[in-house]
Amino acid sequence: MRNSILKISEYVPGRTIEDVAKEYGFLPEEILKLGSNENPLGPSPEAIKAVRDHANTISVYPPTDAKELRCALAQYIGYPIDQIVVGNGMDGVLDVLTRLFVEKNDEAIISIPTFPYYELFILACGGVPQFVPRNSNFDVDVDKLLRAVNKKTKIIFLCSPNNPTGNLMKESDLRHLLDTTESMVIVDEAYAEFADFSIVELVRKYENLVVTRSMSKAFGLAGLRIGYAVTPPEISKEYMKVSPAFSVNRIGIAAGVAALEDKEHLRQTVKTIRSGRAFLRDNIPFKTYPSQANFVLVDVSPFTAEEMCEALLRKGIIVRDCSSFRGAGNSLIRISVGTKEQNMRVIEAFKGVKT
Amino acid sequence: MRNSILKISEYVPGRTIEDVAKEYGFLPEEILKLGSNENPLGPSPEAIKAVRDHANTISVYPPTDAKELRCALAQYIGYPIDQIVVGNGMDGVLDVLTRLFVEKNDEAIISIPTFPYYELFILACGGVPQFVPRNSNFDVDVDKLLRAVNKKTKIIFLCSPNNPTGNLMKESDLRHLLDTTESMVIVDEAYAEFADFSIVELVRKYENLVVTRSMSKAFGLAGLRIGYAVTPPEISKEYMKVSPAFSVNRIGIAAGVAALEDKEHLRQTVKTIRSGRAFLRDNIPFKTYPSQANFVLVDVSPFTAEEMCEALLRKGIIVRDCSSFRGAGNSLIRISVGTKEQNMRVIEAFKGVKT
Repeated sequence: MRNSILKISEYVPGRTIEDVAKEYGFLPEEILKLGSNENPLGPSPEAIKAVRDHANTISVYPPTDAKELRCALAQYIGYPIDQIVVGNGMDGVLDVLTRLFVEKNDEAIISIPTFPYYELFILACGGVPQFVPRNSNFDVDVDKLLRAVNKKTKIIFLCSPNNPTGNLMKESDLRHLLDTTESMVIVDEAYAEFADFSIVELVRKYENLVVTRSMSKAFGLAGLRIGYAVTPPEISKEYMKVSPAFSVNRIGIAAGVAALEDKEHLRQTVKTIRSGRAFLRDNIPFKTYPSQANFVLVDVSPFTAEEMCEALLRKGIIVRDCSSFRGAGNSLIRISVGTKEQNMRVIEAFKGVKT
Repeated sequence: MRNSILKISEYVPGRTIEDVAKEYGFLPEEILKLGSNENPLGPSPEAIKAVRDHANTISVYPPTDAKELRCALAQYIGYPIDQIVVGNGMDGVLDVLTRLFVEKNDEAIISIPTFPYYELFILACGGVPQFVPRNSNFDVDVDKLLRAVNKKTKIIFLCSPNNPTGNLMKESDLRHLLDTTESMVIVDEAYAEFADFSIVELVRKYENLVVTRSMSKAFGLAGLRIGYAVTPPEISKEYMKVSPAFSVNRIGIAAGVAALEDKEHLRQTVKTIRSGRAFLRDNIPFKTYPSQANFVLVDVSPFTAEEMCEALLRKGIIVRDCSSFRGAGNSLIRISVGTKEQNMRVIEAFKGVKT
């Protein structure tokens, strides 16, 4: 077996509703899961209908180029279809993109704390991740990033709004980075729909920029695994060669197309998240950080993140302990924005913990 | 971009029912697609019901370890759950397995003609595929394989029943191979349910054997992308580290579990395929090869495969031109076994072509 694989640390799966219910003495339906940034309104009713309508087609392979879905995404994002690639969740998209550029002993830069998967994808390619810490307010320090670039650097991974900190990268900072380096820059915009702006327009101007997106968050299709990316055309072409032919399943394609047509569900989702995150920030009795995403980062000091997550689990609420995010310290937790009622339950739970 | 990626040839998607209908003047429902070895009975009614019942859960991430599905597969195949791994179709499973062993300049052996994807997975890892031709009756020549093994050889890929030739590898040949080499041997048993025997029991005895399986064929779930593998426990552990966390989608897990419980649909499927392939072999007016799978290989000489596929397309029938299978020559086509009525339509179509 490859040495670089053996060096990857063993995978620890997250806690499921069923596990937590059993351990803490709840019924599964009593558990409030705010640890995975899922859509609190659930999927679009149109997407649910599409799943049911296509249930009898599951014995047929999906179309290999997922054309119908890519077409709908192209229209949604305002790019031609030959600049849209799809994959089995954004995980799948990032995995393929990393493989296009990184091989053994290549380097890639990650701006931490951030989504832990970039590191895994680099390691799986035999690459060496270089970690560049964000500033104390979690802004990206572009000059520090640029100082870390060398001849071996193949990719710079950025996440905006950043997971788990919630902040956006400034467009001017990104332009400065793209103008100065020849490395590929991958900007993960999984949470873009909840933010004040997106930098996806810059793909038209830069040959070294790829923007990745997800249908798991604002479109509420996490269970179906639909990720996509907006790329320069030459990269799409290579991506299609390496990506598994049937990467997006047939039900995902149908539901994805239906969800993209349901503008009202998207609007309601974004409205719910924007008001909910303001409510959480106003009422959580700890330091919170400004968020452009569908979650709020909380510094629970003097408690540790572990203590706080445990206290909330005892009240049936699953949130994300960020201690496992490299560079995030041990007092940060991430709480997904829920419905109004769910958010109020979170605030009530905090009151019990704090006193 | 990596050089080894640029060297991979560009991907050409297969023809869809919609494309063929438009080009040859049919309605989509008039097209008979026998090019992808899908289940002619469609999915299990239980699987369809599971899809519908779970439609409103699609906004929730799948469980990261797909435990319920792996548990059902473990029971079906008779191995403990820690020897079962799953992925986004067998493509996904083979991709992850290849990455565990192959890095830049490593070699892997492929016994051709066979499923063209093994080559792609090796190339995507920067590896070098070594092609060892089968005998004239398409049997694997183990001694020839062994002579191709060297210090750089990481994997030997075998497919049994082999796609597109339909024949099984002898168990004694496989044992000889496993006893003699230290390379990993991956046996793709996508079509095992249609065959007289499976070699999956050997995973208990050999540390260098992995058997991959699919729910796309006998279980009729091609559209949902569910592949799995039976592996030695140490390999499962490494696989779980590298495999994308949510590789099997939520609807796939539900439908997969339901399909595994529907023994009657499986029994009917296997019965339909076994009688259908005998009927096709008895009635196709060209040389056919014995098949243990759900397709029949036909040598259409003096016609070329391209000519014959074109002639059948004009009658609204999509079959597989095997010219793109390395080492298969240019007169072989692969026809998926259909229902009785579909098979009769194929025979009728051949009559029109031959005269």
